[in-house]
Amino acid sequence: MSTDDKKTGRARGEEWWTTKIIEMKPGMIRLRGYAIEELIGRVSFPAMIWLMLRGELPSEEQADLLGIALSAAVDHGPQAPSIAIARMAMTCGVGINSAMASAVNVLGDVHGGAGEQALAFFGDIAAAMDAGHALEAAAAARLDRFFAEAEGYVPGLGHRFHPVDPRAPRLLAVTRDFAGRGVVPGRFADIAEAVEAGVERRKGKKIPLNIDGATAVIYGELGFPPPLTRGLFVLSRSVGILAHAWEQSQQGERNKGPLPREWLWAYAGEPARDLPKAEDE
Amino acid sequence: MSTDDKKTGRARGEEWWTTKIIEMKPGMIRLRGYAIEELIGRVSFPAMIWLMLRGELPSEEQADLLGIALSAAVDHGPQAPSIAIARMAMTCGVGINSAMASAVNVLGDVHGGAGEQALAFFGDIAAAMDAGHALEAAAAARLDRFFAEAEGYVPGLGHRFHPVDPRAPRLLAVTRDFAGRGVVPGRFADIAEAVEAGVERRKGKKIPLNIDGATAVIYGELGFPPPLTRGLFVLSRSVGILAHAWEQSQQGERNKGPLPREWLWAYAGEPARDLPKAEDE
Amino acid sequence: MSTDDKKTGRARGEEWWTTKIIEMKPGMIRLRGYAIEELIGRVSFPAMIWLMLRGELPSEEQADLLGIALSAAVDHGPQAPSIAIARMAMTCGVGINSAMASAVNVLGDVHGGAGEQALAFFGDIAAAMDAGHALEAAAAARLDRFFAEAEGYVPGLGHRFHPVDPRAPRLLAVTRDFAGRGVVPGRFADIAEAVEAGVERRKGKKIPLNIDGATAVIYGELGFPPPLTRGLFVLSRSVGILAHAWEQSQQGERNKGPLPREWLWAYAGEPARDLPKAEDE
Amino acid sequence: MSTDDKKTGRARGEEWWTTKIIEMKPGMIRLRGYAIEELIGRVSFPAMIWLMLRGELPSEEQADLLGIALSAAVDHGPQAPSIAIARMAMTCGVGINSAMASAVNVLGDVHGGAGEQALAFFGDIAAAMDAGHALEAAAAARLDRFFAEAEGYVPGLGHRFHPVDPRAPRLLAVTRDFAGRGVVPGRFADIAEAVEAGVERRKGKKIPLNIDGATAVIYGELGFPPPLTRGLFVLSRSVGILAHAWEQSQQGERNKGPLPREWLWAYAGEPARDLPKAEDE
Repeated sequence: MSTDDKKTGRARGEEWWTTKIIEMKPGMIRLRGYAIEELIGRVSFPAMIWLMLRGELPSEEQADLLGIALSAAVDHGPQAPSIAIARMAMTCGVGINSAMASAVNVLGDVHGGAGEQALAFFGDIAAAMDAGHALEAAAAARLDRFFAEAEGYVPGLGHRFHPVDPRAPRLLAVTRDFAGRGVVPGRFADIAEAVEAGVERRKGKKIPLNIDGATAVIYGELGFPPPLTRGLFVLSRSVGILAHAWEQSQQGERNKGPLPREWLWAYAGEPARDLPKAEDE
Repeated sequence: MSTDDKKTGRARGEEWWTTKIIEMKPGMIRLRGYAIEELIGRVSFPAMIWLMLRGELPSEEQADLLGIALSAAVDHGPQAPSIAIARMAMTCGVGINSAMASAVNVLGDVHGGAGEQALAFFGDIAAAMDAGHALEAAAAARLDRFFAEAEGYVPGLGHRFHPVDPRAPRLLAVTRDFAGRGVVPGRFADIAEAVEAGVERRKGKKIPLNIDGATAVIYGELGFPPPLTRGLFVLSRSVGILAHAWEQSQQGERNKGPLPREWLWAYAGEPARDLPKAEDE
Repeated sequence: MSTDDKKTGRARGEEWWTTKIIEMKPGMIRLRGYAIEELIGRVSFPAMIWLMLRGELPSEEQADLLGIALSAAVDHGPQAPSIAIARMAMTCGVGINSAMASAVNVLGDVHGGAGEQALAFFGDIAAAMDAGHALEAAAAARLDRFFAEAEGYVPGLGHRFHPVDPRAPRLLAVTRDFAGRGVVPGRFADIAEAVEAGVERRKGKKIPLNIDGATAVIYGELGFPPPLTRGLFVLSRSVGILAHAWEQSQQGERNKGPLPREWLWAYAGEPARDLPKAEDE
Repeated sequence: MSTDDKKTGRARGEEWWTTKIIEMKPGMIRLRGYAIEELIGRVSFPAMIWLMLRGELPSEEQADLLGIALSAAVDHGPQAPSIAIARMAMTCGVGINSAMASAVNVLGDVHGGAGEQALAFFGDIAAAMDAGHALEAAAAARLDRFFAEAEGYVPGLGHRFHPVDPRAPRLLAVTRDFAGRGVVPGRFADIAEAVEAGVERRKGKKIPLNIDGATAVIYGELGFPPPLTRGLFVLSRSVGILAHAWEQSQQGERNKGPLPREWLWAYAGEPARDLPKAEDE
């Protein structure tokens, strides 16, 4: 951060918290330069999200497409750690915001990072295309590098539970529709399909695009950088987290554990033993 | 929770995590009974939020009004503890979801609860009206009770910083507009204005509606119960939290403290002293 | 907080963060007036905890008794939401501090507040004794009030799982031992037993002291105020939370859900249904 | 995790939560094989921490040394994000456990990871010594590699605020004392000093050991693996976090921001501007 080291006192304190997002005086709130009372009622919630993150307003269609991606990943049920934790927390005597915090807090590299990884992967291919390579060659080169370096699934493909994740083909079709109307270029949709095809050639079977890959396509089309997609996923999943926390709060449980109350857990450690005699015994 | 105590084994385990929100099988995801691939592209993000929380789809206009309320409270700048914490956390080497969690976690009774309190207050007046009392009388009776029991501001009125919060009159005007089109009854807008007027009569000066009161009006018009408004505020403020966390991550700071790096804090405790001699010295 | 409103600039900023706990200059750290290098190696960890919370050093025996109470409540297994959440979080790709945070965050009024409630209850009886009432009468009066106002268990008594919690009688015996040596008065141990006896007279069966009641006895003997006992419980349970998070990290799981991976959850909501036709269809 | 896939029903559910830490039945709690009522009053709090994390009891002297390291890092004042966040959170209307959670949550790679990095660095040198290299050569080789790969400070050395961190030399002296009594080998103390000397030779000035380096020495002497040192730091710093949260709760502030209430923040973004005309205007 470029700070003016010559400032002192209150000006220096206020400079410490510089931001380009919000300007405020008594009776005045501006977001990214727009008066809040002008924004209210004029821009949709996804457009407000865009404005806050990007600094400029999207077109109405761009905001619609962002909203579609945000809507797609709101919930994947209580076997997901985030959702289970929201429900458990809600029975422990904390506010609904704290239950949501404990849940959001686990959307880490593994639980929340797949979209970011997928978009970075697709972005590498886009960069190769910018440098003059054809789509298929760029995808093949990136896959070669992936299989040389890593094991397991290519980012954005495959699902341990769904043979085909029903969200992915629908999101891709929607993206194609928006591309057809000129809202987005459609390039990341092409890339995702080229990756899918390249994997199928290598593996001899199709490993279909999953929700993380499909939302990465949309976020890429809309110009979001990969690390922001984790944040967008947090906004999206927070909806399911809130819904489950709320549903749980309407039931009467206390200190809900992971297993039915009358069950325990398996113990696999040291058998019963006595404390060693104290040194002075 | 009504549990069937006769179930055992896997069925009992699965019953332990019963929900009415999401149904899943391999290749199938349904939210509130709707196939996810049907929802995607057909419902807006605010409509999805509504569906998840309420169990039924809203009308398009209801969803629009919900989105307007969600958009209005996204940010109030880094003097708000939630926003400051998001920025500080982001410099400590954690993921953006964890920075958001630390921030969301402080939207408690004081920082995040004012809307809930305002809606409960307005709801008491609505209940009195349902029982046959006229608006002004119902508001006056509730205010009498408030001033007999409590000190300080009536929930939903007044702001320590803004003489008039620019969001509140705009949100009220928007609500009136939606009421004029028959989307909502307009009753909570009436109640809020009656409360404002009643306070002015008592205090001799106007204590205007604030953002919490104004969003409480909308959430009340739309039929949300008071405790859910805290959850909705979390969804809304999470946008600002993400925007500030993201902006902070683009700068190079490490372990950002509350004051400029070269400042300290005032110490007001015991002066320097020696440890007491050990008992065996 | 008494702030000197005449201060300005840096002095005002530093005053904003006034504390009596720690004084620092380059090369100097003092806790409660003691130089850190004097404290290191001279005071035990429980004594340091006491110093930080109370402002003065305890005797060695007081610190020992505090350490005993802290040791007793470190773990109650993965059916406790806090422990389960620590383990689940650890499989989601976050740091061990974040896994601990999600877990500590659920030690709320229900999961972490029983000790505070028990000490407040015992403290009411102690206050009545200070006002001249005999132990048994003071306990009976408090219990009368409890049963007139509330349902369920008296704070500090009873356990849904353990007929007798093995920690409680042992902690009480230890307290008696310290009281015999004059370290503590033994008064809260008397009060807890009087409460136990009073409940037995009313109910016709013994509802024995639990871990929360037993640690409340010790914290009361040592002079901690009730709200601080929740904080002490956090320090204690953090040990078990860390142990389980660490054990989990040594296994290879990803996104550990509450139920075995091949299980699901029961769905009890709306059956499959079609989206309503859009208004313009 | 090796799971017996042939188990079904309740046994499978209980196996899903297998642990070697705690065994429980009604009326029975065993930690690492020891009955809890045997442990209570017989082992110190640091010994309990060791038992939970390592699976075996330490000697009394090992526990003492662990307690010394835990005591040294409890607080570094409210300019540390963790401490500031605890204080801010406490004014927002959440429980003390939630204030602690928001604070612990920021002890990430940057704010809480330096000890882990230092111990890993020292451990590389120890491994080279195990492979037959002399101390000085092993340290020099590791430093060569560090300066070839990275910029900035060698892990465990240097402090932005303290010319010499007063905790570090004292902790090193204590370690030497324990080594002299045969409690620990003293090898990590040697390594730390060799690293310090090696850096001084390269830089021409001494960059002294800091608190992270000094506690890493002790944790290394005691045989803790690097990733666990972050967890130990969380236990340690939780004490200061609790002390500051508690002190803050005794004052009457609400929604404490980072700067004095009457200050704001600097705005560096877009100047005021009007919304673009809607497409249908």
